[in-house]
Amino acid sequence: MSTIAKNQNPESNARVKAVFDDIRATRRSDFINNMWHYLAFDTDLLENTWAEVKAVMATPSALDPLTKEMLYIAVSVTNGCGYCAHSHTAAAKAKGMAADQHADLLRVISLAAKTNQLATALQVPVDPVFDADHRP
Amino acid sequence: MSTIAKNQNPESNARVKAVFDDIRATRRSDFINNMWHYLAFDTDLLENTWAEVKAVMATPSALDPLTKEMLYIAVSVTNGCGYCAHSHTAAAKAKGMAADQHADLLRVISLAAKTNQLATALQVPVDPVFDADHRP
Amino acid sequence: MSTIAKNQNPESNARVKAVFDDIRATRRSDFINNMWHYLAFDTDLLENTWAEVKAVMATPSALDPLTKEMLYIAVSVTNGCGYCAHSHTAAAKAKGMAADQHADLLRVISLAAKTNQLATALQVPVDPVFDADHRP
Amino acid sequence: MSTIAKNQNPESNARVKAVFDDIRATRRSDFINNMWHYLAFDTDLLENTWAEVKAVMATPSALDPLTKEMLYIAVSVTNGCGYCAHSHTAAAKAKGMAADQHADLLRVISLAAKTNQLATALQVPVDPVFDADHRP
Amino acid sequence: MSTIAKNQNPESNARVKAVFDDIRATRRSDFINNMWHYLAFDTDLLENTWAEVKAVMATPSALDPLTKEMLYIAVSVTNGCGYCAHSHTAAAKAKGMAADQHADLLRVISLAAKTNQLATALQVPVDPVFDADHRP
Amino acid sequence: MSTIAKNQNPESNARVKAVFDDIRATRRSDFINNMWHYLAFDTDLLENTWAEVKAVMATPSALDPLTKEMLYIAVSVTNGCGYCAHSHTAAAKAKGMAADQHADLLRVISLAAKTNQLATALQVPVDPVFDADHRP
Repeated sequence: MSTIAKNQNPESNARVKAVFDDIRATRRSDFINNMWHYLAFDTDLLENTWAEVKAVMATPSALDPLTKEMLYIAVSVTNGCGYCAHSHTAAAKAKGMAADQHADLLRVISLAAKTNQLATALQVPVDPVFDADHRP
Repeated sequence: MSTIAKNQNPESNARVKAVFDDIRATRRSDFINNMWHYLAFDTDLLENTWAEVKAVMATPSALDPLTKEMLYIAVSVTNGCGYCAHSHTAAAKAKGMAADQHADLLRVISLAAKTNQLATALQVPVDPVFDADHRP
Repeated sequence: MSTIAKNQNPESNARVKAVFDDIRATRRSDFINNMWHYLAFDTDLLENTWAEVKAVMATPSALDPLTKEMLYIAVSVTNGCGYCAHSHTAAAKAKGMAADQHADLLRVISLAAKTNQLATALQVPVDPVFDADHRP
Repeated sequence: MSTIAKNQNPESNARVKAVFDDIRATRRSDFINNMWHYLAFDTDLLENTWAEVKAVMATPSALDPLTKEMLYIAVSVTNGCGYCAHSHTAAAKAKGMAADQHADLLRVISLAAKTNQLATALQVPVDPVFDADHRP
Repeated sequence: MSTIAKNQNPESNARVKAVFDDIRATRRSDFINNMWHYLAFDTDLLENTWAEVKAVMATPSALDPLTKEMLYIAVSVTNGCGYCAHSHTAAAKAKGMAADQHADLLRVISLAAKTNQLATALQVPVDPVFDADHRP
Repeated sequence: MSTIAKNQNPESNARVKAVFDDIRATRRSDFINNMWHYLAFDTDLLENTWAEVKAVMATPSALDPLTKEMLYIAVSVTNGCGYCAHSHTAAAKAKGMAADQHADLLRVISLAAKTNQLATALQVPVDPVFDADHRP
């Protein structure tokens, strides 16, 4: 069930084909997951989204690729995005996330949600020392 | 502004003092941030919350301490918890998060929120290959 | 899968029938979507919810009907409500939302989610000029 | 800091005064909290919001008044609404919420947030027995 | 569809069996719902989660069991957790939630979400009298 | 209070100055709001965020500028982002949002949050007719 019909022949559009080709080359895999098939309803949206995902997630940066996937999972789960929880958990496993790392990830993100509730319920005032603008 | 009055003399309660002592010893710091002062209104809640935070965040595990702090930030920001964004960003910096890692963290969690919206808006169907129960 | 059993013969209740008749008349369609079938488990809840939806969404007001549907989609997607994303996207299309407007909607709501994360992560202080109580 | 300027003389409008009078009578208190002062920028919005709050929260129903306030807190905290956490915690205390009930409330809403994360992260399939439509 | 494969023979692990036995004894039912089957991929996570759920939800405390289930539903729905909405609605019904209580629950949690939006949109300043730290 | 210290002399960096100049030119105003001052801690993040905001919000597209601001508000409020609620409400007013449009906006986004809760609480099954993939 989706809100946009899946394009049955997306690569007949040259710009879509170029994005799909780049996804395949970047990931070294023939598999194009549904996210990209559905985004293909608007070529600009597809191109810009892929360009950003590639720049942030598939380009060497200050954080390693697995850490970035786990952060992606943390946000996706907190936002309740089922599709994203699935796709990024699969990606994290493909990048080597072991079972004990997966369990640790779940421990941290569920504990964070728990203490977020406590801090918000108590409306705990921010300690002045945490203010970066006024730290000595 | 808080929903519970801060206890002005929390360590007069021996169980609260024991928790505060353990926080100071674990963190090697005399500073007890407001979260624990406010949780001290209920000693059980204080003890159990600290025990879990210590077990998950201050005990060696499959993920390193900085990665765990960054995951905590990712969840806290997504939940809109200002106090938690402050306290865990401070903690991540104390554990060595450099400016370029901080920027990378922001890039990933903001991109994740963006694509979460796209996947939810499109109601993208989960690719069968992502189902761990049916993977060959 | 639902948490309440769908009433198999809801219109045997005269008050439910009156609401369903008004939905059909207002929308000029025989189709009653599942939301109303399930809300029919409590007649007061059904009547009050429909009265409010009709007053806000089906009555001429300062914003045009399509803008209101797109705002509804923006909230529903942000809240992760799959049913609502489906029903209000269908409604927006029925009210004339074109593909390029749909893509633009997705661009705005995904960008907003992204910058929400950045502002919350940085805990950006509100500029005094934004305070309506103190604007000259 | 607010996005609408507070009306300095709201009761010069007879409809606003009627709502404020009813709030005072219903609550047996002269205090009108800021929510109503700010909603007064649009008289219809003020009237309709108060009518619904009064009908749901200040009218005898299947749930007792304190339970309803605690449910309101649970939603408000989960949504990260600071104003609402404050106003409804104050209301719950006024309706008799004791410190041990407050602590229990925090235990439940923080545990719920924690297991919500686990269920979403694992994408646990709904047990068929939970489906109200197909329960024998 | 899940992100972890369901263990086909979880009780071959003695620690998992001990948890499952305790769930059955506590609930006086042979049924183990999927949440526990999937959490069983990590025995520590399973043991700790069940211990906390049992302590908070299945142990007499300041709030009665049905109130706690309804609070759990309020948080789960606000977080958009479908699995949790299902499992805790089923639990609330098993603990005696009547249809009129269910409808009242829905009225409160949907009204709370509505006024949360209004307070956040208006950025209503917290009334000083709500500050527990400065209440006379 | 912020998690990053505000750069006291951001325009000493030529790339930051170029972005600030473009913001001033695009908005025809000398005012640079805090969001950009704080993002300036990482020049790439600043450049990329502004480029995207300019492309989506300040470039003619299928939706008019005021509609886009109101959609931005809808998402920001639902995400509980106080800074964003402030900045985009100010922007919407600058683009001509009248008081009755503002009230209508609040009516729609608060009603949407309300019915989102109802649909999620009931776990209403998506009507097959809403599935874009299978619409005749």
